[in-house]
Amino acid sequence: MYQPGYDYKWVGKRPARPDGVPKVTGAAKYGADYNLPGMLVGRMLRSPHAHARIISIDTSKAKKLPGVKAVVTGADFPDFEFKYIGPSRLTNNPWHNTRNMMAREKALYEGHPIAAVAAIDESTAKAALKLIKVKYEVLPHVIDTEEAMQPNAPLLWEDMYTRGVEPSPDKPSNISKRVEFSQGDIEKGFRDADVIIERTFKTEAVHQGYIEPQACLAHYHADAQAELWCSSQGHFPIRTQTAAMVGMKQGDLKVIPAEIGGGFGGKTLVYLEPVAMMLSKLSGRPVKMRMTRTEVFKATGPTSGSVMKIKLGAKKDGTLVAADTEFAYQAGAFPQSPVENGCLCCFALYNIPNQHSVGLDVVSNRPKVAAYRAPGAPIAAYGAESVLDIMAKELGMDPVELRLRNACGVGDPMIGERTMTHDGVSQTFAAIRDHEGYNKPLGKNQGRGVAAGFWHNAGGESGATVYVNADGTVSVATGSPDIGGSRASMAIMAAEMLGVDYHLVRATVNDTTSVPYTHVTGGSRVTFATGAAVVGACEKVISDLRARAAKLWDIDIDGVDWADGMARPTSSNAGTFEPLSLQELAASSGQTGGPIGSSHAVNASGHAPGLCAQYCDVEVDPETGKVTILRFVVSQDAGQAIHPDYVEGQMQGAAAQGIGWALSEEYIYDGKGLLDNPGFLDYRMPVASDLPNIETVIVEVPNPGHPYGVKGIAEAGIVPAMAAIANAIADAIDRRMTSLPMSPPKVLEAIESGVEQK
Amino acid sequence: MYQPGYDYKWVGKRPARPDGVPKVTGAAKYGADYNLPGMLVGRMLRSPHAHARIISIDTSKAKKLPGVKAVVTGADFPDFEFKYIGPSRLTNNPWHNTRNMMAREKALYEGHPIAAVAAIDESTAKAALKLIKVKYEVLPHVIDTEEAMQPNAPLLWEDMYTRGVEPSPDKPSNISKRVEFSQGDIEKGFRDADVIIERTFKTEAVHQGYIEPQACLAHYHADAQAELWCSSQGHFPIRTQTAAMVGMKQGDLKVIPAEIGGGFGGKTLVYLEPVAMMLSKLSGRPVKMRMTRTEVFKATGPTSGSVMKIKLGAKKDGTLVAADTEFAYQAGAFPQSPVENGCLCCFALYNIPNQHSVGLDVVSNRPKVAAYRAPGAPIAAYGAESVLDIMAKELGMDPVELRLRNACGVGDPMIGERTMTHDGVSQTFAAIRDHEGYNKPLGKNQGRGVAAGFWHNAGGESGATVYVNADGTVSVATGSPDIGGSRASMAIMAAEMLGVDYHLVRATVNDTTSVPYTHVTGGSRVTFATGAAVVGACEKVISDLRARAAKLWDIDIDGVDWADGMARPTSSNAGTFEPLSLQELAASSGQTGGPIGSSHAVNASGHAPGLCAQYCDVEVDPETGKVTILRFVVSQDAGQAIHPDYVEGQMQGAAAQGIGWALSEEYIYDGKGLLDNPGFLDYRMPVASDLPNIETVIVEVPNPGHPYGVKGIAEAGIVPAMAAIANAIADAIDRRMTSLPMSPPKVLEAIESGVEQK
Repeated sequence: MYQPGYDYKWVGKRPARPDGVPKVTGAAKYGADYNLPGMLVGRMLRSPHAHARIISIDTSKAKKLPGVKAVVTGADFPDFEFKYIGPSRLTNNPWHNTRNMMAREKALYEGHPIAAVAAIDESTAKAALKLIKVKYEVLPHVIDTEEAMQPNAPLLWEDMYTRGVEPSPDKPSNISKRVEFSQGDIEKGFRDADVIIERTFKTEAVHQGYIEPQACLAHYHADAQAELWCSSQGHFPIRTQTAAMVGMKQGDLKVIPAEIGGGFGGKTLVYLEPVAMMLSKLSGRPVKMRMTRTEVFKATGPTSGSVMKIKLGAKKDGTLVAADTEFAYQAGAFPQSPVENGCLCCFALYNIPNQHSVGLDVVSNRPKVAAYRAPGAPIAAYGAESVLDIMAKELGMDPVELRLRNACGVGDPMIGERTMTHDGVSQTFAAIRDHEGYNKPLGKNQGRGVAAGFWHNAGGESGATVYVNADGTVSVATGSPDIGGSRASMAIMAAEMLGVDYHLVRATVNDTTSVPYTHVTGGSRVTFATGAAVVGACEKVISDLRARAAKLWDIDIDGVDWADGMARPTSSNAGTFEPLSLQELAASSGQTGGPIGSSHAVNASGHAPGLCAQYCDVEVDPETGKVTILRFVVSQDAGQAIHPDYVEGQMQGAAAQGIGWALSEEYIYDGKGLLDNPGFLDYRMPVASDLPNIETVIVEVPNPGHPYGVKGIAEAGIVPAMAAIANAIADAIDRRMTSLPMSPPKVLEAIESGVEQK
Repeated sequence: MYQPGYDYKWVGKRPARPDGVPKVTGAAKYGADYNLPGMLVGRMLRSPHAHARIISIDTSKAKKLPGVKAVVTGADFPDFEFKYIGPSRLTNNPWHNTRNMMAREKALYEGHPIAAVAAIDESTAKAALKLIKVKYEVLPHVIDTEEAMQPNAPLLWEDMYTRGVEPSPDKPSNISKRVEFSQGDIEKGFRDADVIIERTFKTEAVHQGYIEPQACLAHYHADAQAELWCSSQGHFPIRTQTAAMVGMKQGDLKVIPAEIGGGFGGKTLVYLEPVAMMLSKLSGRPVKMRMTRTEVFKATGPTSGSVMKIKLGAKKDGTLVAADTEFAYQAGAFPQSPVENGCLCCFALYNIPNQHSVGLDVVSNRPKVAAYRAPGAPIAAYGAESVLDIMAKELGMDPVELRLRNACGVGDPMIGERTMTHDGVSQTFAAIRDHEGYNKPLGKNQGRGVAAGFWHNAGGESGATVYVNADGTVSVATGSPDIGGSRASMAIMAAEMLGVDYHLVRATVNDTTSVPYTHVTGGSRVTFATGAAVVGACEKVISDLRARAAKLWDIDIDGVDWADGMARPTSSNAGTFEPLSLQELAASSGQTGGPIGSSHAVNASGHAPGLCAQYCDVEVDPETGKVTILRFVVSQDAGQAIHPDYVEGQMQGAAAQGIGWALSEEYIYDGKGLLDNPGFLDYRMPVASDLPNIETVIVEVPNPGHPYGVKGIAEAGIVPAMAAIANAIADAIDRRMTSLPMSPPKVLEAIESGVEQK
C-alpha cells in the first residue's frame, strides 16, 4: 500500500508488458480477427444526404437476392421513451442512440445508417444494399456551428427547445441546451483588472483517428443467449447498450473483449454491435460487421468543432482576477457535446476569484460526437491558454511565471462549486520552468510556446478477480480493455501487494460473465479505479493467506503478518513458526479450505485531476507557412507512476494527437453537407516524420486517494498541446492564430496579413 | 437454504436447461469445433506392438517433408522424478503420465503414442507419420489379468516390486500393489455363519464409450503464454497436467472449456493436450488434435477388467455375519486401478460385522485405465450382489428383504475404518420392494433380479462467481464442465437463494482465468461441491444486497432481512421502509458502492454416499442365449433433487451403461496383444432398440451436509446393473453367469451345460 518514500519492489519499475509479444508479432486478435463457421457478412446502407426525411424503405428486392439472410431497418429495433438526456453522457439517451445507430424518421448526416443486410459474402451484401430502395425528401442542411445557431437555420429537431434558458423559448432551435457556471462577481472582477484580453477562437471537428476501424462479431443463439466479440473501450458498457438496443437481458449477452487498436474515447459508443446482433437474431447465423475507414470518418464520433470567446482580466502584477468564457460546441446530429468540460476545465489550473462561463450545445448535420481524450477540455484550453499567453506578453511576464503565480492550490475554489483537492499544479508548472531547454535561445523564424491543461480524471465502477494457482502463480483478471498497458500495471500492483515476482502474475482482460461490472477504459480511470479493485481483491487474498497460515500453525489470524510474499508470525510468536511463502500456502490450499482467490468491485472515488504543462519550440517557414515542431516537452503529474514506460507513452501519444489537431486535422464539408476528406490521405494526421521526439518529465505528487498514489495520466497531455503550438507560432511570427488547424495556408495568410498578434 | 419440508420455488422444479437449445440444434461447440487461422493438424504415431523396447526413433525425414512444421517424441518433454504414486488418483504420477502420453523407453500397449507431427493438413501429417522410422525390439506381452500375475509373466516394469506386502518381495512383478482392509474378526464371522457362499467372477475391460472423441486446440504464443480449448471433465485439472507435462506455469496457460460429448470418467486424464501444446510451441502455430474412434479405443482409458473371489456368510435368519473378498483389477500398462473402491464399496450397503478384503493392482499390456462412473465399484458389486442373490435363494428369502434386514444405518461401522454417516439405504431398498411391478408375475424364460450399489461420492475443490447485472439479471459462473445439466442446477440454486426468477439467472462454465480452481466434473461432486460454492457466493451477494438497502435506508445492516428477492426491514422497522427488490438494488448499485457480486471457493466436505437399488425383468431366448431387458427400475437416493429431470437422466444413463457392460461390451485381444474390436461396429454398446424405458424412483433423504440437501447422483446408478441383470438371468435360466459380458454365446453355453446356478 502507498507509503511516501517507500522502496517499492515492482511499482515504478519497467518490466516487459505481458501483451507486448502478441501485439508486435501480429498474434493479438482485434475486433475483425474473430470468425465463426457459417458466419455472414453484415453491411450498412448509409444516407447519401446530409439531411433528409425518410419517406419509405423498400427492402423486398434485397431480401429476395440469393445469399441474403437478413435485412434490417430502424423499425426492427425496439424504441424508447423520448427524452433528451439519459442518465449519463456515455450511455446517453437510448431514444437518440437507437436513431443514431439506424435512422428512423430522418437521415441526419451523410453516412447515417438507413438499413443493413447480412449475406453470405461481401459482394452479395454489397449487391443487396443496391437493391434497397429508399425514398428521401431531401431537406436543407446546416454544418457550421455558428450558422446552426441562427434563428433561421434548418432545424434538425423540430421539437427541440433550448433547455437551461429561463423562460423556456417559444421557438425550437438547434441549440439543445445552455449551461452556465459562476464564481465570485465577474463584473467586479473585470472592474478590478488592470489588463483585459478578449479574443474569439474557432476549432474544427477532428477524429480520434484510431488505427483499427470498428468491428464486431455477433452470434445470437436460438435460445436468446448471445455472444459478441468486439473491439471497444469497455465491453460491459457495450453489453449495456447492445442489450438495450436489441431488447435483450444483460445476463443473456456475453461480450468478449478483443484487443483494441486505439479508441481515445471513440470506442465507448455502439455503432455496429446491435445491428450485427439483430441480423444474427434474424438469420440464426453469426454476423460479422466491420467499418471501412470512410465509414469511420463519416459515421463515428469525431470530437466537437467549436466557437468560443475568452475574456481574461489581470492585475499588473500578474494576478488573474476575472475570466469570462463562452463556448458553443458541436454535438453532431444528436444533442450532448462535452461543452460543460470546456466551461469547467479551461481555467481550472488557476485560482481566479471571479469567473463566469456559458456553454451551448449545438446540433448540426454531422455525425454525433464521441468522447475524445479529455473530451471538451483541449478545445477550451486552446482559447484560454492562448489568451493567457497574450496576457503574459502584455504584462511582460514569463508565461510560466504568470501561471505559477496563479497556480490553483489545495483548497482553492474552482468554478462549478468545486474546490481543488489535490496538490501538483505548481510542481507541474515548475518542471517546465526548470527544464534544461526552456531558456535556450531560439533562431530565426522560431518561437517557443507554453501552455497547460487540466482534466477531471475519473473513478467509478471497476472489478477484478485475483486467483492464486496451486503452483503459486497468480491470475489477475479485470474488465478493463488494455489500451495503454493496464495488464502490466495491474500485474505490478498485484505483485507488489502479494509480494511475489511480477513474472508469476498474469493479468488478463475477461468477458462480461467473468469479472464484476467494469466501466470504460476512459476518463483516465483504469489504473486508478481498476487498480483499486485489484488492490482490494489482493487485500482479501492476503487476509485469506494469513488465515491459512494461522490454521496450519493453529494460532489466531491476528498472530500472522503478511510481508514480502510470506506469512510470518507476528513479533509475539517470532521464532516459533517458519514463515510460509505464497507458493507453499498455494500448494496446500486444498487442505486449508480450498482454492485461494477473490473478486472485488469498487465505485472508486478519491481520484485526482490530471495536470499537464508543455512547452514547444517551432520554426515557421515564412514562404509556405509550414510549421515544424523542433522540440516538444511534456510535464505531467502522475501521482505515482506504476509503470513509467506507459505513463511516458500516454504523455507522448497525447501530445502527438494534439500536434495533429493543432496543425493539420479537420473535417472538411462540401456545399451539400458531404464530408470531403473521409480518408487518411485527405484527413491529415501526423506521421512519424511530422513529429519530434516528445520529451517527458513525470512529476510525482502521490494521490492519497489511491493505495499506490495513482492519478490517471492518459488524457491531460492532449489538453495544452494546441495552445502551446499556437503560442509558439505567435512567438515565431508575431501573429495570433485564432482558428484551428494552423495549417500552412492559414499561417501564410496570417503572416501576409501584416497584423500583429495583439 | 435447506429446510426440511420447505416449499421451494425453484429447487425440485423442472425448468428448461439453458444449454438445451444449442445442444439439440448443433450450435454448441465441442472440442473439435474450434479453429484458428494458421492452424496445423497434429497426428500421433502409435505403437503397432503390444510390448516393445524402443531402440531408436528417426524423425529426420518427417521433419523435412514440406508442410511439416514440428515433430515431437517423448524426449521433447520434461521428465519427472520417478515414483509410483502421485498425490491423487486423478493427477496420478507425472513420471508415468508423461510416458503414457508419449512412450520413452518402451511401448507398452498397442496404440501407445511414439511420436507426433504437426502439419498444414491431415494428409501431410499422415504422410509424415509414415516417414518416422522407429526401431523396436518386440517383447513378449501379457493381456490377461490372471496371466499377468503369474510369476513367469512378461514384466512391463522390470523394477516394480509389489508394494503393500511385508516383507518386500525380492522379485519384480506385474502386481504393483496389494491393499487390505479388515473389520471385526473374519474367521469368527464365518464360524458363526449358518450358510456360506463363495464364488469367483471375471469381468472384461469396457470403455466409457463417450460419443465425442478427445479433441483439443492448443495455441502457444511467442511470449510463453498459451491457450487451450478442449473437451474435458475439468479444465482446471487439464491445466495442471498440461502445464506440468509441457513445463509451463499454470498462470500462463488459459484453458477454455468446450462442451463435452460425454466423459464418464474417461476425460479426466490428458492424452492430446500436452502434445498439441508442445507442437504449437515448436511450430509457433495453433495445433489441433483429435482422435479417431480407433485411437479412442486403443489408447484412452477403459475401466479395469478383473478377477474376484467373493465369500459371504449369513445366519439362517438372513443376518449377514462375514464377507471376505479378493479383487485383482487391471491397471493397464501403468499402475493405479480403482481396486480400493472395489474393496470398500462391494458390501458397503450392509452392516456386516466381520469383513476382510484384499485388492491387487495388476499391470498388463493394455491402455492405462481411466475412471469410469463409480470407478471400481460396479465390478465388485457384480460379484458381491450376485453372491447375495445366491444367498437369498439359499435362505429362501426375498432378495430385497435380505438386503433390508442388513441395511447399513447411520452409525454402523463400515470396512476401511469408516462409519455410515447418512440415512437412506433402507429407504432406497424399500422403494424397490414397494414398486408396483416388483411382485408382478413373470412368464416363461423370464426372470427378475435385484441388486444394489454404493458409491462414495465426493466433495472437494470448487469455485463460483455470482455477479448481479445492472438490469437485475444474474450471471453465475463455475469451473465445472456441464455434463449432466449442471448449468440448470446452479441457476436453480442461485435463483432459490436470491429469490429471483430462474430465467433471470444465466449459468456459464468459465475458463481457468475466470473462476476459482474447480476440480473435475466427476465423483458425483458437482451439484454438491460446486453447488455449495454457488450458494456461498450467493450468501455473500445477499449480505451485500442487505448492506446496500441498509445504506439507502440509513440503518444498520442488522435491520435488513432478505426474503423472496427483496430486502425488507426486520420486524422492528416494519412499515418504515418499502422493500427493495434485487432489481432496484442492482439498478442503484453504482450509487451504493459499485457492482454487486462475489466469488466463492470451497473444499467441500459433508458429501453423502450414492445409494441405488434396482430390479430388472429379463427374458432369455433359450435358442440363441439373447437376453432381452423387459423392465428396468432404478431407485436412488438423491438427497434433494435440484432438477429431477437430470437426476432421472443420470439414473437412466447409468443403468443403460450398466446394461451394455452386462450384456455386450468387452475388449477383445488377438494373440499378438492387439485389440480386435476398436470400433462401435465390433465393440457392441447398447443402442435404443436394446433398451427398455428405464423407470426411475427418486428417493429423497436430504443430506444435511449441503445447503439444499444435495447428494451426488451421477454414478451410483451403474453400480448394481450388471448384478441385477445376472440375477435376473439366473432367475430365468437357473444358471449363474460368473463372467461378463453375458453375451448370447456365453448364456447359451450356460443353458446348454445343464449345471444349475448354485
